[in-house]
Amino acid sequence: MSRRLASLPIDLDDVHRAAERLDGVARRTPVLTSRTLDERAGTTVALKAETFQRGGAFKFRGAYNAISSLPAASRARGVCAVSSGNHAQAVAIAAGLCDVRATILMPADAPALKRVATEGYGASVIEFDRYADDRDALVIELARERGLELVHPYDNRFVMAGQGTVALELVAQVDALDVLLVPVGGGGLISGCATVFAATSPGTRVIGVEPAASDDTARSMRSGRRERVAVGATIADGQQAAIPGELTWPVVHELVAAVVTVDDDQVREAMRFCFERCKLVVEPSGATALAALLCGVVPCDGQRVGVVLSGGNVGVAGFMGIMGG
Amino acid sequence: MSRRLASLPIDLDDVHRAAERLDGVARRTPVLTSRTLDERAGTTVALKAETFQRGGAFKFRGAYNAISSLPAASRARGVCAVSSGNHAQAVAIAAGLCDVRATILMPADAPALKRVATEGYGASVIEFDRYADDRDALVIELARERGLELVHPYDNRFVMAGQGTVALELVAQVDALDVLLVPVGGGGLISGCATVFAATSPGTRVIGVEPAASDDTARSMRSGRRERVAVGATIADGQQAAIPGELTWPVVHELVAAVVTVDDDQVREAMRFCFERCKLVVEPSGATALAALLCGVVPCDGQRVGVVLSGGNVGVAGFMGIMGG
Repeated sequence: MSRRLASLPIDLDDVHRAAERLDGVARRTPVLTSRTLDERAGTTVALKAETFQRGGAFKFRGAYNAISSLPAASRARGVCAVSSGNHAQAVAIAAGLCDVRATILMPADAPALKRVATEGYGASVIEFDRYADDRDALVIELARERGLELVHPYDNRFVMAGQGTVALELVAQVDALDVLLVPVGGGGLISGCATVFAATSPGTRVIGVEPAASDDTARSMRSGRRERVAVGATIADGQQAAIPGELTWPVVHELVAAVVTVDDDQVREAMRFCFERCKLVVEPSGATALAALLCGVVPCDGQRVGVVLSGGNVGVAGFMGIMGG
Repeated sequence: MSRRLASLPIDLDDVHRAAERLDGVARRTPVLTSRTLDERAGTTVALKAETFQRGGAFKFRGAYNAISSLPAASRARGVCAVSSGNHAQAVAIAAGLCDVRATILMPADAPALKRVATEGYGASVIEFDRYADDRDALVIELARERGLELVHPYDNRFVMAGQGTVALELVAQVDALDVLLVPVGGGGLISGCATVFAATSPGTRVIGVEPAASDDTARSMRSGRRERVAVGATIADGQQAAIPGELTWPVVHELVAAVVTVDDDQVREAMRFCFERCKLVVEPSGATALAALLCGVVPCDGQRVGVVLSGGNVGVAGFMGIMGG
C-alpha cells in the first residue's frame, strides 16, 4: 500500500472485514442496466441499486458493521443515533439483528412513516425540535447520560468501511469502470467506495454529487480544506450536511477526483427517468448521482459509468408532492 | 407426455424453442424478494419482475418469438397489430430487431407517451376511434389489404410459447413453488406459464388473477366454457378482455387451478406496496397477481408463492392520477 493510502482512516482490509460481517446479512444488491439509459447518456451505465438494500438504502451496511463490531459491554448498554431518515432505520434494523437496544433521536416533524418504520424495527424514538435544538449536542448528551454507544451516520471508521462494501460488490459485478458517480452527504458512502476503487481499480475516477443547496464538499474540494456552508432547502434531504466529516474528508480529499452539484429540478428529472424508464423508485438523495449523468454535469460520453442509486425511501404521497412541485 | 397435454395448442418444447430464440435478446428478469412482503403475506414470496423486461412488460417475449419465427416472405411484407398498450411497444421493438416493418393500430386517445414510444421503436402508427370502430375488424382488414402478418396479442401459439419463458426462467431461479399467481387478460401469459409448470412442476397450483371488471376467464372457469362479458371500467387497462382466447382457453381450462378477481382498490394497494416497500414501479395490470396475495383473495399461508409482476408501464402523471383517485 502506498504511503498516502496508509495514512487514511480506513483501508481495503477494513472493507473486506466489513464484507465478511455483512455476508448473509446485508443484501447483495443487483446491478441494473437499461438500453434507454445508455442511449440517453451516450455511455454504458451500471446502476448499483441500493434501493433494494435492507431498510431501503445503503445505510444498513455501515450501521450493521459498526454495531456488530462493538465489544460485548457496549452492546449490553445499547446504541443511539440521531437521524430523521435512512440512518435511523438502518441503526434500528442492525441493532435488532445484533440484539442490541437502540434509541433514536428524531425530529418531531419527521414523516410519520419513517417514525413508524423505525419503531417497527424495535427502536425507541425520542423526539427533538429540528429548529430549536442542536441535534449533535443532544445525541452526545443522550449517549453520555445513558452510557450508550453513539453510531455516527458517517464519521465512524466502521460505518465508512461498511458503506465501502457497495463498491466491493460493484467491482465484482461489472467490467472495469472509467467513472463511478456517488451521492455525497457527510461522505461515508463515497469515502468507503473511493477506498475500494483506489486499491482495486485506481484508473476509475470516483466523482461525488451533492445537492447545490448543500455544497460543502464541492467547496471543500476547491479550497482543499473542510468548508462549512449554510444548508439551503432541497428535496435531497439525505444530503444536507453542513461540513464534510472529520474522518471522511481526508479520504474524499485524497481519493475522490471531483465533487459536482445538481439542483432540485435535475434531481426530479432523474427520479422521473428512474420511474418511467427503469421502473425504479428512487428518493431524491438517492438520485443525485444519476442526475449528474443525465444532465451532463459530468460528461461521460463513451465511457463505462457506474452510478450508485443510494436509496429509495420515499412514500407515494411524498413522491407525488416532489414530482408535482 | 399425457394425452390431455398432447391435445393442447402448445407444449413445453414450444416454450423451449421460444427460449432459444429469445436467448440474448429478451432480458432474463430478476426474481426479487422482500422480508416485509413475506411477513405481510405470511409466506415466502418470489416476485418475477417482468417490469424490467424490454419494453417494460412480458409482452416482448411473445412478440419476438412470433415475429422471429415468421417465414422470410411474411417478414418481407411486414407485421401489424392493434394495441393501446404494451403489445404495441413489444411488436414495435421485436419487429425492429428482426428488421421487419411494423404497423400498429392505436386508439386516437392512447397516452401520448405510449404512441411516442411505439413510434420511437420504429413502428408506423395508425389511429382509430376506440368507441366507434371495431378494432378487431379494423386490424384484420389492414392485414388483408396490405398483406401484413397480424401478430395477435395472445391468440397465437408463438406468442403463448414466448410468454411461457417467464415460467421457464422462474423454475430455474427459485426452489419449488406451491402456488404461482399470474395476471390474466386474454390468457397468453398464463397459458404459457401453466404449460411449463404442468410439465415441470405439476404440484404447483397456477392461479390466474383478473380485474373484477373484466372477469371473463373467472366466469368461464366456473361454467367450463368461454364466457363473454361486458367489460367494465378498471385501472387494469391491460386486462380488459371480453372473452378468453380461442387458443388460450383450452390451456387455461385444462391446466390452471383457479382464476380469481381483484377490484381497483386492491390493485392500488398492491401498487402502493410495490412502490413503498419494494421500490418497484408496477402498472395496474402488472400488480393484480400481487393484489390477490396481499388482500388474501388467494390464501397462501406458509406456502412458497411465485408472483408475476407483469409490467411497469405507467408514467409519473398516470401513476399520480391512479393513486390520487
